[in-house]
Amino acid sequence: MLFSNISILDENFDYQEGKWLGVLDGKIAYIGDEDPRVAADSPDFGEVIDGKDRLAMPALYNAHAHAPMTLLRGYAENVPLQQWLNDLVWPFEAKMTAEDNYWATLLSCAEMARYGVVSFSDMYYHTRDRARATVECGLKANLCEGLLAFEPKPYSEYPIAQLNLDLIDELHGTDEGRILIDYCIHAEYTSNPITCAGVAEAAKAAGLPIHVHVSETKSEHEECKERHDGMTPIQYFESLGVLDVPVIAAHCVWVEDDDIRIMREHNVSVAHNPASNMKLGSGFAPISKMLREGVNVCLGTDGMASNNNHDMFQDMYLMALLGKGFRLDPTAVSPKQALYAATRAGALAQGREDCGLLKEGFKADIAILDISSASWCPRTDMIGNIVYAGHGSDVVMTLCDGRVVYRDGVCPGVDIEAAKAELASRVKRIVASL
Amino acid sequence: MLFSNISILDENFDYQEGKWLGVLDGKIAYIGDEDPRVAADSPDFGEVIDGKDRLAMPALYNAHAHAPMTLLRGYAENVPLQQWLNDLVWPFEAKMTAEDNYWATLLSCAEMARYGVVSFSDMYYHTRDRARATVECGLKANLCEGLLAFEPKPYSEYPIAQLNLDLIDELHGTDEGRILIDYCIHAEYTSNPITCAGVAEAAKAAGLPIHVHVSETKSEHEECKERHDGMTPIQYFESLGVLDVPVIAAHCVWVEDDDIRIMREHNVSVAHNPASNMKLGSGFAPISKMLREGVNVCLGTDGMASNNNHDMFQDMYLMALLGKGFRLDPTAVSPKQALYAATRAGALAQGREDCGLLKEGFKADIAILDISSASWCPRTDMIGNIVYAGHGSDVVMTLCDGRVVYRDGVCPGVDIEAAKAELASRVKRIVASL
Repeated sequence: MLFSNISILDENFDYQEGKWLGVLDGKIAYIGDEDPRVAADSPDFGEVIDGKDRLAMPALYNAHAHAPMTLLRGYAENVPLQQWLNDLVWPFEAKMTAEDNYWATLLSCAEMARYGVVSFSDMYYHTRDRARATVECGLKANLCEGLLAFEPKPYSEYPIAQLNLDLIDELHGTDEGRILIDYCIHAEYTSNPITCAGVAEAAKAAGLPIHVHVSETKSEHEECKERHDGMTPIQYFESLGVLDVPVIAAHCVWVEDDDIRIMREHNVSVAHNPASNMKLGSGFAPISKMLREGVNVCLGTDGMASNNNHDMFQDMYLMALLGKGFRLDPTAVSPKQALYAATRAGALAQGREDCGLLKEGFKADIAILDISSASWCPRTDMIGNIVYAGHGSDVVMTLCDGRVVYRDGVCPGVDIEAAKAELASRVKRIVASL
Repeated sequence: MLFSNISILDENFDYQEGKWLGVLDGKIAYIGDEDPRVAADSPDFGEVIDGKDRLAMPALYNAHAHAPMTLLRGYAENVPLQQWLNDLVWPFEAKMTAEDNYWATLLSCAEMARYGVVSFSDMYYHTRDRARATVECGLKANLCEGLLAFEPKPYSEYPIAQLNLDLIDELHGTDEGRILIDYCIHAEYTSNPITCAGVAEAAKAAGLPIHVHVSETKSEHEECKERHDGMTPIQYFESLGVLDVPVIAAHCVWVEDDDIRIMREHNVSVAHNPASNMKLGSGFAPISKMLREGVNVCLGTDGMASNNNHDMFQDMYLMALLGKGFRLDPTAVSPKQALYAATRAGALAQGREDCGLLKEGFKADIAILDISSASWCPRTDMIGNIVYAGHGSDVVMTLCDGRVVYRDGVCPGVDIEAAKAELASRVKRIVASL
């Protein structure tokens, strides 16, 4: 595939017009000012697409999701957090079957592809079913099987220990590396030190990351300190060796200065979920501080019961906007920092080193935007336009490893009408059974 | 125009499926379960449109804008407020001609129509040129000529006093009532008591509303109290008779409990501008308190240098989301309240009593949304879907007084390509002259 005369965000996120962009064998093969086909030894790029009024930018990486929760979109609105969890979300989830998980993941994938998202770090259950849906849609995912470990016993005594080994055997690195398996600890308040230490050892032995919720709410953060001699969740996890492997720490709303230092030292990636944190009234993470300290801040959509969409443009927008609004500082959190968080930072957090930038040799993960509408004019500051005025729905084509996963309303790998019908009837069945 | 089998938000914002919706002579002529053409005396509705996967909702009313500032989109990013105003915005604005205002308003109108917005309350200069653009696009506007009144002299001695009378003569109520003229006081800190009292008298005599900025920043609010014996901006305006006419008070970020009571008593409409207030680091208005007290809270996009788009779905989203997030209360500000603010509340603030609801006899101001995409599934809570998961770009048709002002990418009244080219060259000219 070859785009002519297209606008791009280059590897430094500088906006450039009138470029040629060539995709070959799943990678970005050419970015330049000339038609690469004039070279005598030019490969055959296949389809040539007119890039007029089109912007190519790195596709987006969703660093924290619960894809099957799309079944719960709109299910638990305007209720306090504990009621949300105890009375609504958990009883609903208890009724969800493997097939429910498959269909909801499929629809989530279609939604992400539609908004230019190519990869997601997903914490939930029924990992095989989630992997199947992801592969069908053509996306990448770092999947982890959720671990609730209330009982203080060795990790190896939890059945999930063997399940994770099986999943690694069966799935890790499959679909040309698009499917990866992570380890999981749900959170400090749903675990215990013995089991956590065991997960850390297992992840270290397997050379895999751990995905964990950290300091999402104030009460979670404060109660951890009460339980563990003043240790915050980050300090608790550090003391158990959890931070000795690559970690994606979701939320981090209430982390303290010392936590930020620890996260930086251990190269923890923070998955910032501004939409979810606002909607559930959890608070706003100190991301400007984290960015200043050099922490790898990524972006996540979280589950659809608390977002309620997979449009990461909205999360970029919130990161840049609220970074300013919450601190009453219009210079905090630049649009470029938000764009980096949604792209390169997420790819790095997922261990996908050759992803997240438009750069020759990198994987061809590209979102093509229609920039012809009034909102994109004038083009004084295109990063500002993307982050403040852009929409996920401006995406007209999404490439994942060079393959089209969304184009002009169609996800080639997903029968959207079938998936929508399945979701509607499955929600009906679950709600009727509650 | 007649929509068959369409989903609607009825006059109580209840979601209904499978309806017939008829538009005739600029009004909503029929909402019901049956094809109205079976009646023997049925009028000819003209074009019949299949409503499958379509949602008809009230079009949106933008209660606070500066339409020509679209020229400044992306111009003054990531700088502190005083630098933003003094060094960037004001010098740029000083170079803007009447024709610049016309073209930028035209593009703003096209952008609003594209996002389902049919009416806007606009404070700026060159009112005749803004009216011309508005009429060409087919929208409604409450236009006011900006008043900076630093010199303490009678209002009648300001040339704008006569200009306003001329504008009322020429424009008020024209284009079948779509163009209305409001009075303006820019703000307390840019005015003086003598002139303000004169504006209040003139507005009262003309029977017209006043559009004013109130307590946008903390320093503005506090400095007013220092200047005026402890009076807040709202108390200051009340003391001068300004609140004795209908008022749209933009921002109200720092208003106090007593101010809210005064606003309620005087039926002041508040134009909440969450995107702008966040981006400029001004703060978040106490809207849950205002709503509880019964204040008419509307929504505005403000100018494009501080938003940066006219997509009011984003402002609805921010109102509902931040109403929760800023108060750490997931039950505060329901999606329905945000939807009401963006529609009916705005229409009422603009004195357009027969607008802002899908109701027989009301003006046919309708946004038709494509709800076929994954984000709209399941349909458990459609108001939640609209506010949290919807996009302005889901709008596929916008009707203003029954006339199509946007449909499938096209604004019939605006040559978008010409307007974009004009804006690009005008920005270039202005920036080169600075």
